[in-house]
Amino acid sequence: MVHAGVMSGSGNLMDFLDEPFPDVGTYEDFHTIDWLREKSRDTDRHRKITSKSKESIWEFIKSLLDAWSGWVVMLLIGLLAGTLAGVIDLAVDWMTDLKEGVCLSAFWYSHEQCCWTSNETTFEDRDKCPLWQKWSELLVNQSEGASAYILNYLMYILWALLFAFLAVSLVRVFAPYACGSGIPEIKTILSGFIIRGYLGKWTLLIKTVTLVLVVSSGLSLGKEGPLVHVACCCGNFFSSLFSKYSKNEGKRREVLSAAAAAGVSVAFGAPIGGVLFSLEEVSYYFPLKTLWRSFFAALVAAFTLRSIPFGNSRLVLFYVEYHTPWYMAELFPFILLGVFGGLWGLFIRCNIAWCRRRKTTRLGKYPVLEVIAVTAITAIVAYPNPYTRRSTSELISELFNDCGALESSQLCDYINDPNMTRPVDDIPDRPAGVGVYTAMWQLALALIFKIVITIFTFGMKIPSGLFIPSMAVGAMAGRMVGIGVEQLAYHHHDWIIFRNWCRPGADCVTPGLYAMVGAAACLGGVTRMTVSLVVIMFELTGGLEYIVPLMAAAVTSKWVADAFGKEGIYEAHIHLNGYPFLDVKDEFTHRTLATDVMRPRRGEPPLSVLTQDSMTVEDVETLIKETDYNGFPVVVSRDSERLIGFAQRRELILAIKNARQRQEGIVSDSVMYFTEEPPELPANSPHPLKLRRVLNLSPFTVTDHTPMETVVDIFRKLGLRQCLVTRSGRLLGIITKKDVLRHMAQMANQDPESIMFN
Amino acid sequence: MVHAGVMSGSGNLMDFLDEPFPDVGTYEDFHTIDWLREKSRDTDRHRKITSKSKESIWEFIKSLLDAWSGWVVMLLIGLLAGTLAGVIDLAVDWMTDLKEGVCLSAFWYSHEQCCWTSNETTFEDRDKCPLWQKWSELLVNQSEGASAYILNYLMYILWALLFAFLAVSLVRVFAPYACGSGIPEIKTILSGFIIRGYLGKWTLLIKTVTLVLVVSSGLSLGKEGPLVHVACCCGNFFSSLFSKYSKNEGKRREVLSAAAAAGVSVAFGAPIGGVLFSLEEVSYYFPLKTLWRSFFAALVAAFTLRSIPFGNSRLVLFYVEYHTPWYMAELFPFILLGVFGGLWGLFIRCNIAWCRRRKTTRLGKYPVLEVIAVTAITAIVAYPNPYTRRSTSELISELFNDCGALESSQLCDYINDPNMTRPVDDIPDRPAGVGVYTAMWQLALALIFKIVITIFTFGMKIPSGLFIPSMAVGAMAGRMVGIGVEQLAYHHHDWIIFRNWCRPGADCVTPGLYAMVGAAACLGGVTRMTVSLVVIMFELTGGLEYIVPLMAAAVTSKWVADAFGKEGIYEAHIHLNGYPFLDVKDEFTHRTLATDVMRPRRGEPPLSVLTQDSMTVEDVETLIKETDYNGFPVVVSRDSERLIGFAQRRELILAIKNARQRQEGIVSDSVMYFTEEPPELPANSPHPLKLRRVLNLSPFTVTDHTPMETVVDIFRKLGLRQCLVTRSGRLLGIITKKDVLRHMAQMANQDPESIMFN
Repeated sequence: MVHAGVMSGSGNLMDFLDEPFPDVGTYEDFHTIDWLREKSRDTDRHRKITSKSKESIWEFIKSLLDAWSGWVVMLLIGLLAGTLAGVIDLAVDWMTDLKEGVCLSAFWYSHEQCCWTSNETTFEDRDKCPLWQKWSELLVNQSEGASAYILNYLMYILWALLFAFLAVSLVRVFAPYACGSGIPEIKTILSGFIIRGYLGKWTLLIKTVTLVLVVSSGLSLGKEGPLVHVACCCGNFFSSLFSKYSKNEGKRREVLSAAAAAGVSVAFGAPIGGVLFSLEEVSYYFPLKTLWRSFFAALVAAFTLRSIPFGNSRLVLFYVEYHTPWYMAELFPFILLGVFGGLWGLFIRCNIAWCRRRKTTRLGKYPVLEVIAVTAITAIVAYPNPYTRRSTSELISELFNDCGALESSQLCDYINDPNMTRPVDDIPDRPAGVGVYTAMWQLALALIFKIVITIFTFGMKIPSGLFIPSMAVGAMAGRMVGIGVEQLAYHHHDWIIFRNWCRPGADCVTPGLYAMVGAAACLGGVTRMTVSLVVIMFELTGGLEYIVPLMAAAVTSKWVADAFGKEGIYEAHIHLNGYPFLDVKDEFTHRTLATDVMRPRRGEPPLSVLTQDSMTVEDVETLIKETDYNGFPVVVSRDSERLIGFAQRRELILAIKNARQRQEGIVSDSVMYFTEEPPELPANSPHPLKLRRVLNLSPFTVTDHTPMETVVDIFRKLGLRQCLVTRSGRLLGIITKKDVLRHMAQMANQDPESIMFN
Repeated sequence: MVHAGVMSGSGNLMDFLDEPFPDVGTYEDFHTIDWLREKSRDTDRHRKITSKSKESIWEFIKSLLDAWSGWVVMLLIGLLAGTLAGVIDLAVDWMTDLKEGVCLSAFWYSHEQCCWTSNETTFEDRDKCPLWQKWSELLVNQSEGASAYILNYLMYILWALLFAFLAVSLVRVFAPYACGSGIPEIKTILSGFIIRGYLGKWTLLIKTVTLVLVVSSGLSLGKEGPLVHVACCCGNFFSSLFSKYSKNEGKRREVLSAAAAAGVSVAFGAPIGGVLFSLEEVSYYFPLKTLWRSFFAALVAAFTLRSIPFGNSRLVLFYVEYHTPWYMAELFPFILLGVFGGLWGLFIRCNIAWCRRRKTTRLGKYPVLEVIAVTAITAIVAYPNPYTRRSTSELISELFNDCGALESSQLCDYINDPNMTRPVDDIPDRPAGVGVYTAMWQLALALIFKIVITIFTFGMKIPSGLFIPSMAVGAMAGRMVGIGVEQLAYHHHDWIIFRNWCRPGADCVTPGLYAMVGAAACLGGVTRMTVSLVVIMFELTGGLEYIVPLMAAAVTSKWVADAFGKEGIYEAHIHLNGYPFLDVKDEFTHRTLATDVMRPRRGEPPLSVLTQDSMTVEDVETLIKETDYNGFPVVVSRDSERLIGFAQRRELILAIKNARQRQEGIVSDSVMYFTEEPPELPANSPHPLKLRRVLNLSPFTVTDHTPMETVVDIFRKLGLRQCLVTRSGRLLGIITKKDVLRHMAQMANQDPESIMFN
């Protein structure tokens, strides 16, 4: 049935070249992979294993191991990602507290662990347990007063600077790729781009260590995005242990997609949200098999994280439980928060402007100084305000919380009615006390500070995530709005909008829920996540009750943010860095044709092609030397220009080198032929060289009249690297992925009117 | 930039033909759609609206309305699907109870509603409230004794027969498409097949009504699958109201995907699970935009269902809350349940064998009789056993439940330690009482009966879902295993496997959890759902705690079931009915080439082609008359066979008809030409007919050496209808979607060895 003689494609080529030239088939750095080719290579491998497995028991076992290796990799990724996340959590807790003081019983205890066994009964007393000493107590034996405050202040700044300096130095010296959140690059890698070392072992190690340092230093950044990068490094590491994944860039990316899911899963304790995040936001090619495996990896990671001793016993990052339902009228403030979240999307513009400035001016030459300066400003401004002094995730946690009866937080300083005895969980709305008013001012200042400093922080040469700062901004705004609505409802419960649902003595407004809605809105505004955002938030609360407020805010925020620019922060950074990323979400709606995009354009020199049986080895070598194309179309002859196939540059070079070394009679004048039979040559001509094996007989072609819309679709869905353009079988030109991207960028910047009708 | 003159594609054609022939561009019944073409038509439409929107305010508003119509459709689908699900629930409750008795205060009250306001305090007394009369009480005024029992028995059978007869008659007379679960057909439709009327208004109406009837009749079937069909009918109805969706088969399918999500959402009260079900199981083309909209529709539907008065106030179908964690050692019985679920996958084989028998023998000619017979057997066998008499969803609910202190169920008849006072929620394991032993016997009998009768029920000419019966089988098996493990742990708590976690007086085994795990396993075995299954179950319990048991069971069940055959029940029914469905999950790993699959094969007459400028109108009309191909490739000439495009049959016919009617000088001898310029003709020849507008200048081509693996991938991902095969620009043949499917089926049946190496 199969014509073995004419079998083409990379499969056979691999059989032939695999041993002598192990690097054939791999790609060069900063090149795009060919998904179709990777897929067919994997099928070949699979076929080989299946046929071998019938030969002996040992081969059968090997084939079983191969089939199971996917699950093993997932398990390992889950275990390592969960462990690393747990270790990072513990280290961050300890080092954050180190800025304020130290535990006398064991210096490696965090404040909470130090006072764990203390006998004090109230939260406040336990907070001041004698084993935990602030720096002022330890150094000058004073716990109160101006000098103690100044000493603590200085120590706080010093530690912050030390951590930040260490982090930026480590990144610069050992792993420059460890900086940033990593998600833009991972998106690009998953779409089929090669960035060597981006997911390497050094990056993994340095990113883990520096992540701890920068989060502890109190900078306005989060560990969630970098955790995705760390998980992907784990994924890359484990996939390099199995030849199924290490030798196939397509299969490797399936593992990385799952690893990204595991990363989000441990970042938020939301396995389902993690899988959807990977599907919606990060991944490019996400087959159903990967869905199931991602889910497995995400679950393993989440459970590993939870079983780390001393860690958070709750799986989720911000566990909340509200006791009151929400009311229809509250949708209005929720939507307002959505608008605020959408406006926070403007952050993208400011941040990109600043990053572009950093890239183009002298500023970019002093990354260490920049980090030191920003850290110093952050620490100096942050210390006096209790809401910026503590770690951002603690802040979010407090803002999300509903005020219970035992809550000692300043935010819960309401004036209690002394006559009232009610169950602990059901506390009616009360008038705000002094603490709440103070908190409002402090929150407002903290909000402004966070907004400004985050613009300058995200994009520095240190690991930095944007989830937590965005959530903090949203949570602060949300909590303030929530308290506002609550007080309004309390004092004006006879207003028509409150009358129906908020009688005096009822617990009708939950400011914590507003904080959560605000956080979701801001996160949505900056990342443009939709389903995964709502699902992550749903997993945090565990109740379907609050999905409608969250959705309302997320949708509003997305619409408002889209009005200022369609790009999310990750896409914006991808464009800033010029990665060749073909976004699945961008709709290409212009009316151009393949002929408008293909090379060569009118006036350019003709396409470099090979002929099937008339070029000599020397001709080809010259062509290879003079050009840097990835491959060359092969045509019948220069006159007819009828396309017969495509030859990859790497494979041509290897085949010629191979022939020159091993095959006798191959000289520079030898004619190369791609046909089955050698061409008829003059009697005294040298031995011809048959190169049919390096010829891909099934190159992808479109006609010159194909709408670019279809071409873009084909590139996206099939993951092509290049595509040849023909008319009635005659080769006209070539379109590469970069041509497509360039064309799309060009179209997006032009006036659509002028494109459509001229 | 764009060469307006040479613009090709369906877009322009539409402009030209849209008005006079409104049916151009629609597809015939039982044909596949061309996704690429639908997509480019939508882009054209969108472009037109965008450019018009700048002309006037009114057009701008229209463009906004168009942009919002997607959300409006989702909202409407959610509202209608939720309402219908609520109405079905209420009606089923009432009619199920009608089989046993009637409410005196208002005959349209169900048993529960009837006794709602009754003053009795215990559950048992309230169950026997005086307003609710059994048929024996009402008719012969006896509530106990043999004659009362027999009368009730007879009434039960009579009602069941009446309901079933009504249902099957309605289906036969008004809407034959309303039978079955509908999911196989919906999968096929979503993959791009046209089945007219399958989602029509009559189907919607009749399926809703008959669904109530068959569920109430007590047959072993569920309403979950049919609810998906009902929701899709709603989706189809609403999409027909907006020209954006009604005129574009591709866009319409996006709406249907979302509707399927809404269907599962209301079936289980699990919106996220519904979206994932649509993604994993039902949909074919699922862009991210659809994900977000599906989620919206699913949420709206779930909330609408919940706000139906008198309905279930809990959102989820089977709300459960367990108080005990699970222990590592319990994984063993959970995995055993997974194996049982995998064996339940054998149901597919039995059911398909029976359905094939029905299709091929005389049995299929008497659908009404068949339904009556199965209903009679079901009712006769079911009545004496309390676990089969009640509705299946009530049964599952009871099996899932944890035995609280106030539980009156027979399954909770444990022997209590009279000295013990413990909080309500924390009841230790106790020895089983008489009730539990009786329940075990009855459950075992019910299990066998359910297994057997479901094989014969699923596939009859009535609406029938398989989720609930599968879950019931699993839940019964699970509960029995659970009680077994519980009693073993109680009586042998010194055994090494129990010693660590199950001390006397501890509440260590939750039989309800086993029931849930068993249900998940059986559902997985029969549908091969994975992620969506676990997520649905997660949404039922709302705790991440039990995800590991559920996953263990689901994975085991899938593996065991896959060992007996890769097909899930839906794929099996798709194949049984011979629908042209190209499954995304099937991996095509054979080494065949496009040349092995394309038509014409060796020895067959050559491909019917059109030449670009040498055929007369009559030639073409003869060709159209003699063949039934969907379209014809256009070549330069019969000698060169160089491909220049593809012309659709429908469009050719319309264009010729149009020209004959309206264009002067077009006679049978007129030459048809597809080129820009008319060919040079003899002086006295009739006026030639230009048909360039119906020529698709960008037909999809592959070379004859393209591996079929790649071709299958292209067909799947781009949703092609056909693809032309060329070699060096010369047309060799054509591959249609049906050729691909036929080839895949052929390969799957052959010995892989013989395919790979000959």
